[in-house]
Amino acid sequence: MARRFYVALVHHPVRGRDGGIITTSVTNLDVHDIARAARTYGAEHYFVITPIEAQRALVEHILGYWCEGDGARRVPERSEALSRVVPIESVEAAIAAARGEGPEPIVVTTAARSGFPVTGYAEARARLAAEPERPALLLFGTGYGLADELIARAEIHLAPIRGGGDYNHLAVRSAVAIILDRLFALEGDR
Amino acid sequence: MARRFYVALVHHPVRGRDGGIITTSVTNLDVHDIARAARTYGAEHYFVITPIEAQRALVEHILGYWCEGDGARRVPERSEALSRVVPIESVEAAIAAARGEGPEPIVVTTAARSGFPVTGYAEARARLAAEPERPALLLFGTGYGLADELIARAEIHLAPIRGGGDYNHLAVRSAVAIILDRLFALEGDR
Repeated sequence: MARRFYVALVHHPVRGRDGGIITTSVTNLDVHDIARAARTYGAEHYFVITPIEAQRALVEHILGYWCEGDGARRVPERSEALSRVVPIESVEAAIAAARGEGPEPIVVTTAARSGFPVTGYAEARARLAAEPERPALLLFGTGYGLADELIARAEIHLAPIRGGGDYNHLAVRSAVAIILDRLFALEGDR
Repeated sequence: MARRFYVALVHHPVRGRDGGIITTSVTNLDVHDIARAARTYGAEHYFVITPIEAQRALVEHILGYWCEGDGARRVPERSEALSRVVPIESVEAAIAAARGEGPEPIVVTTAARSGFPVTGYAEARARLAAEPERPALLLFGTGYGLADELIARAEIHLAPIRGGGDYNHLAVRSAVAIILDRLFALEGDR
């Protein structure tokens, strides 16, 4: 479990309902829920990716309240999770931040829809374990999912979450929680 | 995977920050996110448990919009999930509804804190598999967790979700998603 990994929620480029590329809005709840899940499984940072400066400022405002303001005093475990949130302008910038001075990150994408070849979770765990020195960067899409260009460039594209049936419309917050658990929970805990 | 199971979010009796028993408010997002996760893993119903009639009416109002109103036309997959949501007045009533004319439900509780003996996930899966004819009813707590009286009466009390570290403050929405995945995902999918 010494692997370094990063979680990123992508607000651009993502697909809209008609398949076109859009920029979605940041939501307070995606910041909170995903920060808590990322902290639970030991992510270094949770990148909130949006090219819109005012949206990144909104994230900073939320973080200020919970990490330094009244929220930090009232719910200290919340600031512990939110202190790892980093608003950032692009996927490229998130990759560079995950890289730092070290090796190239393994970019991992996720999608509810198919259309690209996918990697199952047991194989994904094995491939991450085979290169423990490289950080992993997990990209999650808002809206109707990550843009094809992101999925096409990823080293690992995870299979959609299935619950045994045909329904495949989880909230992104739920999908992040399940995927972190599948990839990073201790084997004996699951 | 023929097991019948039910998910329930308990707003009373649950613990407040100081450990006293309180009634929490229904939130729109708990209704949506947990309905989608419950539908993904094949739950029969998702019970939203609150003794406050006005809160149950609020849930009915949300369901009306998404199952019959504009929401149903705009996002049909959302109504598919929300059509299984049932507001109900008490844990007892949820147990009775899960029982119906059939065998007694296996009541399963969950908590982030310890203090009670817990069952690991592999053992929980085995115990559920051993009695496939009995429905399972999974109780999740809001606030600071299920009241002790509920945990003490449960047949299975699941271990807290650990991510490999010491941080243990997931959103209930995330905990529901992870626990449904651990209990009900197809073995090969995980």
